[in-house]
Amino acid sequence: MDIENPPTERTTPKPQGERRGLVIVHTGHGKGKSTAAFGLALRAHGRGKPVRIYQFMKVPSARFGEHRAFDKLSACRCGPAPGRSPADHGPLAGQAPEATWEPIIEGLGDGFSWKSRDLEHSAQLARDGWARAEATIRAGTHFLVVLDEITYPLRYGWLPLEPVLACLRERPRETSVVLTGRDAPQELIDAADTVTEMKLVKHHYQAGVPAQRGIED
Amino acid sequence: MDIENPPTERTTPKPQGERRGLVIVHTGHGKGKSTAAFGLALRAHGRGKPVRIYQFMKVPSARFGEHRAFDKLSACRCGPAPGRSPADHGPLAGQAPEATWEPIIEGLGDGFSWKSRDLEHSAQLARDGWARAEATIRAGTHFLVVLDEITYPLRYGWLPLEPVLACLRERPRETSVVLTGRDAPQELIDAADTVTEMKLVKHHYQAGVPAQRGIED
Repeated sequence: MDIENPPTERTTPKPQGERRGLVIVHTGHGKGKSTAAFGLALRAHGRGKPVRIYQFMKVPSARFGEHRAFDKLSACRCGPAPGRSPADHGPLAGQAPEATWEPIIEGLGDGFSWKSRDLEHSAQLARDGWARAEATIRAGTHFLVVLDEITYPLRYGWLPLEPVLACLRERPRETSVVLTGRDAPQELIDAADTVTEMKLVKHHYQAGVPAQRGIED
Repeated sequence: MDIENPPTERTTPKPQGERRGLVIVHTGHGKGKSTAAFGLALRAHGRGKPVRIYQFMKVPSARFGEHRAFDKLSACRCGPAPGRSPADHGPLAGQAPEATWEPIIEGLGDGFSWKSRDLEHSAQLARDGWARAEATIRAGTHFLVVLDEITYPLRYGWLPLEPVLACLRERPRETSVVLTGRDAPQELIDAADTVTEMKLVKHHYQAGVPAQRGIED
């Protein structure tokens, strides 16, 4: 057996200090930055924690698989699965269909692309989106807040970095924040507790293979 | 603006060939290998596709956040969220609580650790688990099958690699398979369509910070 690689994610023994929220960065040019953030939100939701995902480069009307699934999680009014002990099924568990609910995931952008005519409009949406995300983080009402693809507005100069760093420094101690996107600024990496580089080893596009719907959207 | 880094995951233009299932590998010593696989399963489920996650190093009784959330997704009997058009909410949508359901995620292991007395038992569980996973993949009943942490039984010599490669080669064309774990064998990387190395840049354990429940379990 390969003693060098025990079956654990732990790179050092699990510390025993005080538990607190983390700043987590997923960067790099490979796949999995956003999907891993979705997985973290899924896990926290499963623990009954309020989570929120703000997508800086997706439109509010986006209805990809993740939007449909997170809507289902946040709006489900069922009890626990048959044979399962009552796990937390969200604030609406057992309530009537018309009960109000908060979406877990939300697009803040305008479908920006290099063909966009009005880049200032895209920049303004990013600033408006950040104002909402910052308010959510500072309010301390959410266990986990994902700032999906926020590195792009930072890189394009649409959002200044310092207010983002200040919000991370001053956030409630229990709140975790996940930031995703290519080319995370070094100051953001310095400010983070955990940073993973999703490195592209091989991509199916390179072999001319498109994925089926449900894999990438 | 940084013209070098357009806001897209695409490393080459999206190809127009025939869509098919993919073999996707998440490896490396960083975080996010399993959580990104969970995110892919979440997305596919949101598209109404049957998904299955087999965890080779987790026990069947594991009730981490991901298990609770996937149970909720697979057993939810609600309709769509208020104000949403009817998205697929799984085979049980609208059915009675006692309707049978299939779990999305399942542990196959025995909590193996280096303290384990009976490694042969762990190895036998891995072989039994693989037999079930292989049957699911070959049956073509599932859009996406995740083989979580399968690289460990492969590396420990509990599972031979060739039958796994044969199953991937011979799988139904529409079925995607995601394999996760450190140190993926080169033959597996060669057989994959998409490979991401989750590279550890920084880990909160290194700073002596434990995460709150809901982040890592």
